[in-house]
Amino acid sequence: MSGPGYEFVKGHGTENDFVLLPDPDGSVHGELSVDRVRALCDRHAGIGADGVLRVVRTAAYPGADRPASAAEWFMDYRNADGSRAEMCGNGTRVFAEYLSRAGLADPDGLTVATRAGDRSLHRNGAGEWTVDLGRPGFTGWSQIEVTSSDRTWRARGIDLGNPHAVVFLDACLGALDLTSAPGHDPAAYPNGVNVEFVERAGEGRLRMRVHERGVGETRSCGTGVGAAALAAMEADGAGGAGGAATYLVEVPGGRLGVTWTDEDRVLLAGPAALVATGHTDL
Amino acid sequence: MSGPGYEFVKGHGTENDFVLLPDPDGSVHGELSVDRVRALCDRHAGIGADGVLRVVRTAAYPGADRPASAAEWFMDYRNADGSRAEMCGNGTRVFAEYLSRAGLADPDGLTVATRAGDRSLHRNGAGEWTVDLGRPGFTGWSQIEVTSSDRTWRARGIDLGNPHAVVFLDACLGALDLTSAPGHDPAAYPNGVNVEFVERAGEGRLRMRVHERGVGETRSCGTGVGAAALAAMEADGAGGAGGAATYLVEVPGGRLGVTWTDEDRVLLAGPAALVATGHTDL
Repeated sequence: MSGPGYEFVKGHGTENDFVLLPDPDGSVHGELSVDRVRALCDRHAGIGADGVLRVVRTAAYPGADRPASAAEWFMDYRNADGSRAEMCGNGTRVFAEYLSRAGLADPDGLTVATRAGDRSLHRNGAGEWTVDLGRPGFTGWSQIEVTSSDRTWRARGIDLGNPHAVVFLDACLGALDLTSAPGHDPAAYPNGVNVEFVERAGEGRLRMRVHERGVGETRSCGTGVGAAALAAMEADGAGGAGGAATYLVEVPGGRLGVTWTDEDRVLLAGPAALVATGHTDL
Repeated sequence: MSGPGYEFVKGHGTENDFVLLPDPDGSVHGELSVDRVRALCDRHAGIGADGVLRVVRTAAYPGADRPASAAEWFMDYRNADGSRAEMCGNGTRVFAEYLSRAGLADPDGLTVATRAGDRSLHRNGAGEWTVDLGRPGFTGWSQIEVTSSDRTWRARGIDLGNPHAVVFLDACLGALDLTSAPGHDPAAYPNGVNVEFVERAGEGRLRMRVHERGVGETRSCGTGVGAAALAAMEADGAGGAGGAATYLVEVPGGRLGVTWTDEDRVLLAGPAALVATGHTDL
């Protein structure tokens, strides 16, 4: 607070929380540094968040890590440790809510450019956003290990713009110690993986906890929720080409809906909240 | 963010962090509710902090929980769970830094009213603040238990406006599991207690971790640092009537200095940082 600093917005989707940095023309932050992302996301010395969403016009982001896109806005997403990630399902809804509130996009629907490609979003009458996560990739099976529990499970690999490994538990989801990153097969996931631990909670209902690479355990992960629902639908013979299905997934931070359409697309529906706006010079 | 909301400032002292709520005439928040404090301090759905510091003129705070004071400003401090606490040593420095920066008080020194009475503060040339925590109360010995470690220790009771129990460890401070509140003797501490775990780190130097009642483990606790240093000085026969002494205490969030003057007063010296300003309607 030595000067007025730059603008930020704090928001969350099912308590997966973000510092948004409005930077329409890329002139505020230029090349956003790893140190700045870490300082902003520090939950005691900074503002605190699971990640940063820089709001920048696609044309103003020349990075080679962005696919070509005709969408006006690019979601420059960084994990709390400063690393770049392809996609963030909860983040897209919060990003869209910001653009909508700020009068920078159609309040009811828009397409956002991400490192995983374009994602279209629509808002319903209740103010919840649905994001089209695209077609899923089923990437095989591998082993996931939780050292502190001395347990290893088979995990379903699913790609939704970013890599996921889904583990089904019979019980004791709440007791699982996720303070350390679960061990994964580096041959299957050379760039790391988000790991979802899933319990059944009734027909078409799941409970989930998630460990996100570069972050740690979070209260929600949008694409992780999508991957968990897809793995369950696959096991149940539901959704996809045989006819659309919708599953509800409870995470520590709230509830999300996942639809696997008959055109093999994955739709994620849930809330987006903006809780504060301000200035910082972190 | 449905409207412009009310003003906040985020700050910290050695990573003991606070949401400050400027409310000079008490007209912004009236009776600050437990729910609002909890929402603000929520680290995922809110802004996130160990506590709230409402900045209100003493005359505008009619609460019976405030001693009479001629000081202009009252530090209306709340723990993250919404409960009221008497004092917060790191909080007073951040509170003074805010008043100083905002042009609401002498930038080099002022007296702040707290629920534990008046506290005077002075800033040095390096921008660090020293707060006079007053005369300590030595309140006897009791037992502190850490269930997860299946260990019980004798603890020195010290009152610095709020109650503390100081435990000395021989080793393994870093390995201690403080995710749950340590058990204390309710007869000795009917209103709960802050528990400090302390290791020697050389002559006149300590390392400390702290569990704060109403919060959990924090990265620093100012009065706790004072209590830890006093307990060590008492054991060493240093400080106080025999001649002033200064000890340095390292906490996870930084380093603080504690002086026990020959007039039996406890001075706490350390940094105060303001990292963001903004608006919220949480």
